Amino acid sequence: MYLRCLRILTEEGQDRISSKELAERFHLSATQFRKDLAYFGEFGIRGVGYEVRRLEERLTHLLGLDRVHPILVVGMGNLGNALVLHGGFNRAAFRVAGALDNDASKVGTTVGDTTIRHISEIETVVRETEAEIALLAVPAVVAQETYDQLAAAGISAVLNFAPVRLRRSPKVSTKTVDLRIDLEELVFSLGRE
Amino acid sequence: MYLRCLRILTEEGQDRISSKELAERFHLSATQFRKDLAYFGEFGIRGVGYEVRRLEERLTHLLGLDRVHPILVVGMGNLGNALVLHGGFNRAAFRVAGALDNDASKVGTTVGDTTIRHISEIETVVRETEAEIALLAVPAVVAQETYDQLAAAGISAVLNFAPVRLRRSPKVSTKTVDLRIDLEELVFSLGRE
Repeated sequence: MYLRCLRILTEEGQDRISSKELAERFHLSATQFRKDLAYFGEFGIRGVGYEVRRLEERLTHLLGLDRVHPILVVGMGNLGNALVLHGGFNRAAFRVAGALDNDASKVGTTVGDTTIRHISEIETVVRETEAEIALLAVPAVVAQETYDQLAAAGISAVLNFAPVRLRRSPKVSTKTVDLRIDLEELVFSLGRE
Repeated sequence: MYLRCLRILTEEGQDRISSKELAERFHLSATQFRKDLAYFGEFGIRGVGYEVRRLEERLTHLLGLDRVHPILVVGMGNLGNALVLHGGFNRAAFRVAGALDNDASKVGTTVGDTTIRHISEIETVVRETEAEIALLAVPAVVAQETYDQLAAAGISAVLNFAPVRLRRSPKVSTKTVDLRIDLEELVFSLGRE
């Protein structure tokens, strides 16, 4: 969240900011901000504040976002296609390194620059691409089974788009994207107007 | 967030829970939970706790999720198709009531049960469907222009999937889904292992 704020400030050309200004601008707690940063070291200068770009770089490094992370897209339906082609993934820290499906008729076809391979090749694909992260875009009914295949193939992190609660592997960082929650928040904001 | 927790408890068949148990189970603050609920009225019984299903129903009502909200999907590329067909949207509080695109060759074709209409018909579609919410799934370059069209047509809430910062209309609740942030969180969790 802090990194997102700093990116906005960098875009706007702001060089320096105090924790108080940052807190006011982004509705955060200045105390919490200083405490959170202190966990990782010294960043600001008392009475002067933070150099925006330098802090952004250091947080980027701390978050492991200064190197490229190859990602696999698993399940090449509409959503999988959208994810492979999604502008936001093929820049900065992320690069789509492979796409997999269990439909033999899709295998060998390309989406953008990516050739679809069969899910049974997952271990080879993980080895070749060194991907740690997979986007799980398969239908709900095969989500668990596919997740288990990814875990067995050595994937360390899964972003799940299927509307199911997965039995998680302890070795895999797992996060489910639930768009209904975003919609529900919007509905609540409607109700308050 | 509380509603999500209660849904999990209902699924698990738990009838009753104290704020303390709930806090422990979901890593929340019991004090904050009680305070947040108090904002809306009396819910629990001191020393007894909360009836899970009843609290779930009352929060569902407070959030405006006990009635159906028709939604429009705007931009019928891969992502738009995925959103129209997404299992999670066509149940409970949400129903896809229309799909729009600016590509004349798509107009009149159907995706699931939904017939695609031209974006120039937006005002008619809003009137006919009484949709308040739109999912904006157009390419980044036309996102602002399309958002402005939705605002002008009387849409009250937009969930934006385009990787751009929109100049927001004061009349429209606007939320951008940024999947990179989810990915970035996963990368950080990888780094900590």
